[in-house]
Amino acid sequence: MSVFLVGAGPGDPGLITVRGLELVRSCDVVIHDRLVMPELVDEAPAAAVRIAHEPHTQAEINELLVAHGRTGSRVVRLKGGDPFVFGRGGEEVLALAEAGVPFEVVPGVSGLAAVPAAAGIPVTHRGLASQVTLVSGHFAAEGAPPDYEALARAPGTLVVFMALRTLGSVVEGLVRAGKNPRTPAAVISHGTRPDQRVVVAPLAELAEAARGLEPPALVVVGEVVRYASLDAAQMLTSLSVA
Amino acid sequence: MSVFLVGAGPGDPGLITVRGLELVRSCDVVIHDRLVMPELVDEAPAAAVRIAHEPHTQAEINELLVAHGRTGSRVVRLKGGDPFVFGRGGEEVLALAEAGVPFEVVPGVSGLAAVPAAAGIPVTHRGLASQVTLVSGHFAAEGAPPDYEALARAPGTLVVFMALRTLGSVVEGLVRAGKNPRTPAAVISHGTRPDQRVVVAPLAELAEAARGLEPPALVVVGEVVRYASLDAAQMLTSLSVA
Repeated sequence: MSVFLVGAGPGDPGLITVRGLELVRSCDVVIHDRLVMPELVDEAPAAAVRIAHEPHTQAEINELLVAHGRTGSRVVRLKGGDPFVFGRGGEEVLALAEAGVPFEVVPGVSGLAAVPAAAGIPVTHRGLASQVTLVSGHFAAEGAPPDYEALARAPGTLVVFMALRTLGSVVEGLVRAGKNPRTPAAVISHGTRPDQRVVVAPLAELAEAARGLEPPALVVVGEVVRYASLDAAQMLTSLSVA
Repeated sequence: MSVFLVGAGPGDPGLITVRGLELVRSCDVVIHDRLVMPELVDEAPAAAVRIAHEPHTQAEINELLVAHGRTGSRVVRLKGGDPFVFGRGGEEVLALAEAGVPFEVVPGVSGLAAVPAAAGIPVTHRGLASQVTLVSGHFAAEGAPPDYEALARAPGTLVVFMALRTLGSVVEGLVRAGKNPRTPAAVISHGTRPDQRVVVAPLAELAEAARGLEPPALVVVGEVVRYASLDAAQMLTSLSVA
C-alpha cells in the first residue's frame, strides 16, 4: 500500500478514526483539504511533506497522488468527512488504479449524521424519518443541480452538503417542486467544531435566516429538525409539538 | 456528562473514532450491541460492567441507560455504525432527556459509505451518482416498509441497511414500482471485517445471488456498483462498461 485515502471526519479532530490517525502519524506525505482541522495535519511527522489541496485543481491532486505514490512514499490523502460521500474520492481512486498505484480507502465519519447530531438532530427516528436523502449543493462538482421533483416527493430527512452558496436556489427548487414551505429546516455551520452555529427556520425562510453563516455548512430538512437542541427541556418541548 | 452514545463504526475495530475509543477505555459501564466487535468491548477497563443489548428490548435498554446514568457512573452505550443512522439513538437520547440524565452523542462511521467502500464502491461519483438514498430493511423497527414508488424514482444510489431478511420483498417492491431490474446491485455481508463477502448481480437476481449470506448485510443499488472491486484492472473494465 502506498496511498491511503483517509476520511478526517466532520470537523472535531477527535472524530477521526483510530486507523486514520495512525496513518497520519506514520506518513511521508500528507495531502489535505482546506477543511481538515490543522490539529490533524499537525499529527503528521515533522519531516513529512505537507501539501494543501488549495489552490490545486482536482486533476492536479490526482497527478500529485500518482506521482508521490509511485515513489513508494507512504502518502495520506486526508479528506474532510468521508472520501466517498461527496468527497470525490472515486475520482482519486480511479486515477490511482489507472496508474497502477496501490491504494486503500479508510472511511471517515461523514458530516451527514454527525453534524445534525451535534445540533441535537437524529437524521433517522422511529415513526418520524425512516428514509434519508443526501445531495450536494455544490452542483458544479456533481455535474448538475439535484432533481427537485424527486427530492420534494422523498419522505423522511433531506441532507444537503455544501449548501450555503446555493441555498436560495435549493430552497426555491424544493418549494416550487411541491415541498411544504413550513417543513422544519436547519443550517449548521462549522458543525462539531467549537465555533459551530445552528439556525432553525421553516424551509421557505431558511436562506434568509442563514445569512452571515460561513461554510462549511450542512442543511437538514424534515420533521426530525423539531429535535434540534442540545437542551433536554427544549427537546421535550419539541417532542410535544411533533 | 454521564452517558455517552458512541458509534462503534461499521465492523473493523480500527474504524472507531479516537474519542469513542478513549471513552470506552475509561468507562464504568458499557452497554453494547451484538454487532459490535468483541475487540472493542474488550477495550473497556477490566472492572467495567459489561451488558449486552441482546436479549433486552429497546425499552429495557432505555431503562438501563437511565438507571446507570443516574448513579453518576461513566456509561458508554456502544452501538454499531452511527447512533443516529438507523441506530435508534434518538429513542435512547429522548429517554435520557426525559429522565434528566446528561448525555453526549459521539458519532461513528456509518456503514452506509464505509461498507460499499470496502467493496470498491463509491456511493457518490461525479456524473454517475449525485444523490444517495438510505432506508432500512428492518421495517418493524422503522414502523413501516419503505415507499417503493419514491425509491424507484430517486436518482443516484440506494443503500438499504439490515436488508438480508427482507431482501426478496425489497427487490420485488422496487421492480414493481418501476426500478429497472437490470440496475447493478450488490450485497455486502460482514462489511469491513475479515470475513466480508460481496455478491454483485442485476437487481432482479440479487435475492437469489445473496442466498447463504449472513447478517449484518448492506445492499447497494445503482450504477456505482459497476465499480465493485478492489482490483485495479477490473475497476477499469467496469469503467469502460459505464
